[in-house]
Amino acid sequence: MKGVGFSFKHAGISAKEIHAAAPILSTAIFQLNSIKDKGYDGCATSINLPADKAMHLKVKKLAKKYKKAAVIVVVGIGGSNLGTMAVYDAVKGKYANFYEKKMVLFADTVDPDSIERFSNAVKENAKSKYKVLLCFVTKSGGTTETVANFEILYSTLKKYQKGADWVVAITDKGSKLWELAHHKGWDCLEIPKYVGGRYSVFSPVGLFPLAVAGVNIDALLKGAKDMRNKCLNIDITKNPAALSAIALASHYRHHNKNIHDTFLFSNDLENIGKWYRQLMGESIGKEHDLNGRKVNRGITPTVSIGSTDLHSMAQLYLGGPHDKVTTFITLDSFNKKMNMPVMKEYDALASSIQGKSMAGIMKAIEQGIKTAFAKGNRPFMSVVLPDKSEESIGQLLQMKMMEMMLLGRLLNVDPFDQPNVEEYKIVTKKILAG
Amino acid sequence: MKGVGFSFKHAGISAKEIHAAAPILSTAIFQLNSIKDKGYDGCATSINLPADKAMHLKVKKLAKKYKKAAVIVVVGIGGSNLGTMAVYDAVKGKYANFYEKKMVLFADTVDPDSIERFSNAVKENAKSKYKVLLCFVTKSGGTTETVANFEILYSTLKKYQKGADWVVAITDKGSKLWELAHHKGWDCLEIPKYVGGRYSVFSPVGLFPLAVAGVNIDALLKGAKDMRNKCLNIDITKNPAALSAIALASHYRHHNKNIHDTFLFSNDLENIGKWYRQLMGESIGKEHDLNGRKVNRGITPTVSIGSTDLHSMAQLYLGGPHDKVTTFITLDSFNKKMNMPVMKEYDALASSIQGKSMAGIMKAIEQGIKTAFAKGNRPFMSVVLPDKSEESIGQLLQMKMMEMMLLGRLLNVDPFDQPNVEEYKIVTKKILAG
Repeated sequence: MKGVGFSFKHAGISAKEIHAAAPILSTAIFQLNSIKDKGYDGCATSINLPADKAMHLKVKKLAKKYKKAAVIVVVGIGGSNLGTMAVYDAVKGKYANFYEKKMVLFADTVDPDSIERFSNAVKENAKSKYKVLLCFVTKSGGTTETVANFEILYSTLKKYQKGADWVVAITDKGSKLWELAHHKGWDCLEIPKYVGGRYSVFSPVGLFPLAVAGVNIDALLKGAKDMRNKCLNIDITKNPAALSAIALASHYRHHNKNIHDTFLFSNDLENIGKWYRQLMGESIGKEHDLNGRKVNRGITPTVSIGSTDLHSMAQLYLGGPHDKVTTFITLDSFNKKMNMPVMKEYDALASSIQGKSMAGIMKAIEQGIKTAFAKGNRPFMSVVLPDKSEESIGQLLQMKMMEMMLLGRLLNVDPFDQPNVEEYKIVTKKILAG
Repeated sequence: MKGVGFSFKHAGISAKEIHAAAPILSTAIFQLNSIKDKGYDGCATSINLPADKAMHLKVKKLAKKYKKAAVIVVVGIGGSNLGTMAVYDAVKGKYANFYEKKMVLFADTVDPDSIERFSNAVKENAKSKYKVLLCFVTKSGGTTETVANFEILYSTLKKYQKGADWVVAITDKGSKLWELAHHKGWDCLEIPKYVGGRYSVFSPVGLFPLAVAGVNIDALLKGAKDMRNKCLNIDITKNPAALSAIALASHYRHHNKNIHDTFLFSNDLENIGKWYRQLMGESIGKEHDLNGRKVNRGITPTVSIGSTDLHSMAQLYLGGPHDKVTTFITLDSFNKKMNMPVMKEYDALASSIQGKSMAGIMKAIEQGIKTAFAKGNRPFMSVVLPDKSEESIGQLLQMKMMEMMLLGRLLNVDPFDQPNVEEYKIVTKKILAG
């Protein structure tokens, strides 16, 4: 397997800082090792998902049953679809629906225009006898947007796809949805109780729709498992999750850097950035620390896409305040088929690109911005993915989830809860009940 | 015309702060009034674009010539395509290529996978005699990514679309591209010299491709012109651009809020957020102030989409640090066709939504988050668009551009330059020159 590469050379962390973080991190990593492959009793046990063969077999068996699905609609929001979107786009491409045989739709918010379009897609495809599969994904079983969208899309499905009630529910065992699914006779997959939405991409939440959509989940999990083992290394100087957590915590605490930009040099990786936004936003953004003190802690995750956003954000990143840490995520091996023609008449417009590969031009831009960051004392970490394959993406996501568990320890917050989210939900429910 | 609504009730600005900002802003607004409809001599003259009838006529005439275009590829990056994407998605929908007759593609970065897909789209459509139009947009005439992408796509076009060299160049008068276009016999539209990329959406940069794509540019400009006049109001208590600028400047300077989140409650408006990222990032992110002092100033613009991102970012926004000002952008009138069925069996999953309109559920969520923000002393401004029509979007974009000019004044930086961008371009060019 080709391993993901990491460089912390420009992360701005000293041996002293690594040394200072060692006691906390060693304890945390030791604890992670102690729960390794021992079921799902406890929030950090999501690290056991990549090695859970029984669950994989179950997912693959069910995916086989629905393999003829031509349209897969993932009805879910937040932790119930961000990981799936991230992997799907990376592996199949951001606009895969234009060229892939299967259509994969993600129904998240209740934007009526979006849902109308999805409902039309279900109608047209169900009518023409292409099989439409609805994945009804909600951990609690009662997320407002998800239930609303499901009702709309299921009504359409029932009307047009006669005799094939193709619904798979993915939820906590014993939730109201779990009960409904059994009552209706829908297939049902379980999310382990302690695995939270933002850590659930390698549970049936991500694996089932991805498998039906033709993503190689074996390779995805192989990558994840391999990286898990690297991030369980007690020697934190060789543990990428630990080093990344140290850099983020140290810049936040000691250098007022309250923003972490994930700068991805591939259009197809944008949703990995959005998945990471939730992972970091919910895990670290806390009103109270673990001692119950009011701290209003948090690092704001932002997403940039290269080279596009150099044309909108480079001025701020290079000239603006020193309030950011950046993680560059680049590809080692790009599509090699695209090469510039040699058209001399364009030399006057942009020199030195005739006959070059597109990948080579992208590499030069990546190097240009990294050099400028280094020169300007803008701290950054480098993650180099071998490619956008399942194995590489599995490694990346697993490393990021473990980074977040360790970062929570360093910042003394609970990386697994999200208590403040209830604040707006209560008002919303009151208005709806109105 | 339906006007865009603004509320600064929860913006956390006092009468004292408004009073303190008045001298600077009055001078700035007075100066803007003095250049109104007097050509393009000076950077702020982009405010004259919405009323430039001669330019509009020229754009519309040329758009008519290419009205049979079935595929429009906008080859441009940053200020050369962000505004066009923002308006197009808002008016036609984010995934319009799935249902609109015309296909509109945006080729920005040199990601080889993206360009391969675009090149295939050009090939297939040119082959089948649908007309493909390439809009070659670069203000300087020499943006590396744009020239590279154009060469690739133009080679494909030449090969398959025989006898129809459909290229329109949009650039500064006298640029190398301007010269090449005249040499080649391509149609050419001029960007006024002092109008920078991020202020150019109402110049031919945005107007021409939008007009060919079927967007009503008359209505877009009508909205922009109307809002321009509102934002030229010397009475700053009635000037939304001024009030918004005061809120942003005041929270940045006095309350350490270095992040401005634009939280849009409509999937189709995401690219308006991305357009605004460039507008704010490049205009305010500065190493030096107007007195030449090194200040490293800047507010980091972020984009959230409702209700989706409540499921990833609400925890941070409500529980995390008080480091943000938020602008909620919501729609007054949503698609009314989508209504929930009444399916009692789902009541156990999510109560109080049966039979409701999707728009009503979205409104309840909007209200829920605004109430939680107010309760938690999280400052926010509210912008309510009547709808996603051209008129509404024209108003919004014009207000935001004038807000930025005024914010530059308040923060004592030049909102029209971007000197630090050169830092990475120099390295990139050296590497390419090998």
